[in-house]
Amino acid sequence: MAINGERLWQNLEALSTITDPDQPWTRRAFTDRYQEGRDWLKCAMQSAGLATRLDDAGNLIGTLPGSEPALAPLVLGSHIDTVPSGGRYDGILGVLAGLEAVQSLAESRIQLRHDVEVIDFLSEEPSEYGISCVGSRGMVGDLSHEMLNLCEPGGERLGDAIRRMGGTPEALSAPLRKQGDIAAFLELHIEQGRVLEENHVPIGVVSDIVGIHRYDIVVSGQADHAGTTPMELRRDALAEAAGLIKAIQQSALDQSTGDNYLVATVGRLNVFPNATNAIPERVEMVLEVRSNDSHLLQSFFHPILDQAKRDASTLGIEIVATPLSEGLPTPCAELIQSKVWEAAQTTGLKAMSLTSGAGHDAVYMAKIAPTGMLFVPCHEGRSHCPEESITPQQATNGCQVIQEALKSLDNDLG
Amino acid sequence: MAINGERLWQNLEALSTITDPDQPWTRRAFTDRYQEGRDWLKCAMQSAGLATRLDDAGNLIGTLPGSEPALAPLVLGSHIDTVPSGGRYDGILGVLAGLEAVQSLAESRIQLRHDVEVIDFLSEEPSEYGISCVGSRGMVGDLSHEMLNLCEPGGERLGDAIRRMGGTPEALSAPLRKQGDIAAFLELHIEQGRVLEENHVPIGVVSDIVGIHRYDIVVSGQADHAGTTPMELRRDALAEAAGLIKAIQQSALDQSTGDNYLVATVGRLNVFPNATNAIPERVEMVLEVRSNDSHLLQSFFHPILDQAKRDASTLGIEIVATPLSEGLPTPCAELIQSKVWEAAQTTGLKAMSLTSGAGHDAVYMAKIAPTGMLFVPCHEGRSHCPEESITPQQATNGCQVIQEALKSLDNDLG
Repeated sequence: MAINGERLWQNLEALSTITDPDQPWTRRAFTDRYQEGRDWLKCAMQSAGLATRLDDAGNLIGTLPGSEPALAPLVLGSHIDTVPSGGRYDGILGVLAGLEAVQSLAESRIQLRHDVEVIDFLSEEPSEYGISCVGSRGMVGDLSHEMLNLCEPGGERLGDAIRRMGGTPEALSAPLRKQGDIAAFLELHIEQGRVLEENHVPIGVVSDIVGIHRYDIVVSGQADHAGTTPMELRRDALAEAAGLIKAIQQSALDQSTGDNYLVATVGRLNVFPNATNAIPERVEMVLEVRSNDSHLLQSFFHPILDQAKRDASTLGIEIVATPLSEGLPTPCAELIQSKVWEAAQTTGLKAMSLTSGAGHDAVYMAKIAPTGMLFVPCHEGRSHCPEESITPQQATNGCQVIQEALKSLDNDLG
Repeated sequence: MAINGERLWQNLEALSTITDPDQPWTRRAFTDRYQEGRDWLKCAMQSAGLATRLDDAGNLIGTLPGSEPALAPLVLGSHIDTVPSGGRYDGILGVLAGLEAVQSLAESRIQLRHDVEVIDFLSEEPSEYGISCVGSRGMVGDLSHEMLNLCEPGGERLGDAIRRMGGTPEALSAPLRKQGDIAAFLELHIEQGRVLEENHVPIGVVSDIVGIHRYDIVVSGQADHAGTTPMELRRDALAEAAGLIKAIQQSALDQSTGDNYLVATVGRLNVFPNATNAIPERVEMVLEVRSNDSHLLQSFFHPILDQAKRDASTLGIEIVATPLSEGLPTPCAELIQSKVWEAAQTTGLKAMSLTSGAGHDAVYMAKIAPTGMLFVPCHEGRSHCPEESITPQQATNGCQVIQEALKSLDNDLG
């Protein structure tokens, strides 16, 4: 038996048509367009034989019953919301491939021992309320009172928005599910990077998901006249920031070898006063460090910063770095990694192990359940843009592997 | 005999009160406020015994007659317009100290052989019409038809603005004055830098005025996901721009030794898309190189650029540099430099030779007349800001030196 790749592709195409028409592909969480997408998904789940419900965090859950109701369910899932002008596959593939994996099992009259749930997590992408992964946080008890009180620019509280989507924000002060309530969680996702494509490998077995540390960095010098201030009298904040950026890049290149995944990026930088004939007085920038190694993540920046501060202070330049966030890496469960490897082998697909450099709902699910992820390549690693692209074969590959892994997990787990 | 330092300071104070009241110190060229300043200056010139007139370029000229009318005049001058929220001395000191030097001569009944003119050049600062040094350019025939047709945001042509200030734009297709029409031009100015202050020297004898080359530089890489793109697959435009900025700074430090004045500044830089989690796709920046050595000025950037382009191309990053302006240095006349040195010595003031890193009306006057400049220190080199500051003694020093130099030039020049 096999999955129906054509139907999976048709579903991906069908859901993609539910987009803000002037800005494809846009289906932002909490909007009417998103609700339209969920109505379509709920209908598709029901047509496939799944019983649907919303949990208190506003997650849409479709369940195919197993033969042993006492067992905790196996769970597949991801999200169907998008960023503005996003893609057709980020998150969506994980939900629709999960649905297809389950639907084709049901059609083949193969009943697993465990219930299988397909979950569309509410609002995984950064939303107007200021946080991401709303539904998966809510499910595991990670939506604080403060988060529920976050407001979008129009003034609506996140808690009220969750209620509008069918959730019950009052119930979110405790976890909706806890350790033992889910037998295993598996999320299929597009890679959003170029590693699989460059290596011509169709399946990525995710070993871990990076932790992310962000730092706000301010370099303060003096805004002198660019014509009349000799080089040796300058306190040029941009030249100093440039040295720091190069040191960060070099150190990240040096340390990102072998098993250590490490990336460090200054993506945002603003210069003040930013005038052609003024020596820059101040540079504000954000450094983002991501790694699967918590020691490396925590130790990466400090020696670079200390050296840069020492160098700068001899020139009368000050560098101040303030941590903005300090999330730790999430390892994927060994059991699920090995099941995905075996499933790829069974389906005749080459696989490689890799770290997820992006965050996912799986980060939160890992807090309560054995969790794994697999990636399929996407064209040139493009994501969060209309050019995000995969082939029908790549979608089929991923779907087949999760179905195989699901069957194997169903056999082995108690 | 000596100049009246107290009157000079009172005049500096009086003219400073003519400012946009909510934004001191602001007296922008072509505004009613500026006209108010000129009316005050015209009155001050007339009270001092000078005959006043406007030339066709809108320059205000006060003349004290000499005993030999056949001789070309000696000219002192600078400008009384300011940048928005500018200072009280930039340009203004050169005009009012010129006036004081002449007024105190007249009061002492010392008649020079040459006529002496004190000129307030129209619109030296960058104006809303897009160019600076309007009056001095116009006087020497350097205001092109295209420049006269430049419009400010409200739509007024520069030519019409000159007419509004009392000039005759039709007359500006030819130089108003040519070689031989002026015996010597001397401009006193605040340094707008920190060299005199750091060296505790009250008088700077300007050896030359830098030429300025500006380049628009675009670094183009690829905007990948900052989490999922390993360091070795990146085409990070900002990291590459940072390397170029450091190379420019190091090379400028290396080459700005001894007699070669050279400064190189990246003052303006913008990053795209400028998002925390996106590798920078494009950096746009402006490099400004200033030097008193035309060879150095022209040869400075190209080897750095070539090396940067080679390095970048191995990473798939492109660097394109477009020249925006390529002005050459202006040497000051040896005769006037030596007269200023002697005058400083006569008045008991220590002097040092230095390059002007900023442009001045003297750049244009040098095209038709033996031209010199002298600087007095300003506090911390601050200029073009309300904090711009000098002491009454510093103003007096400069005024005494130009008066001494004037007398000496009057003696020696035919």
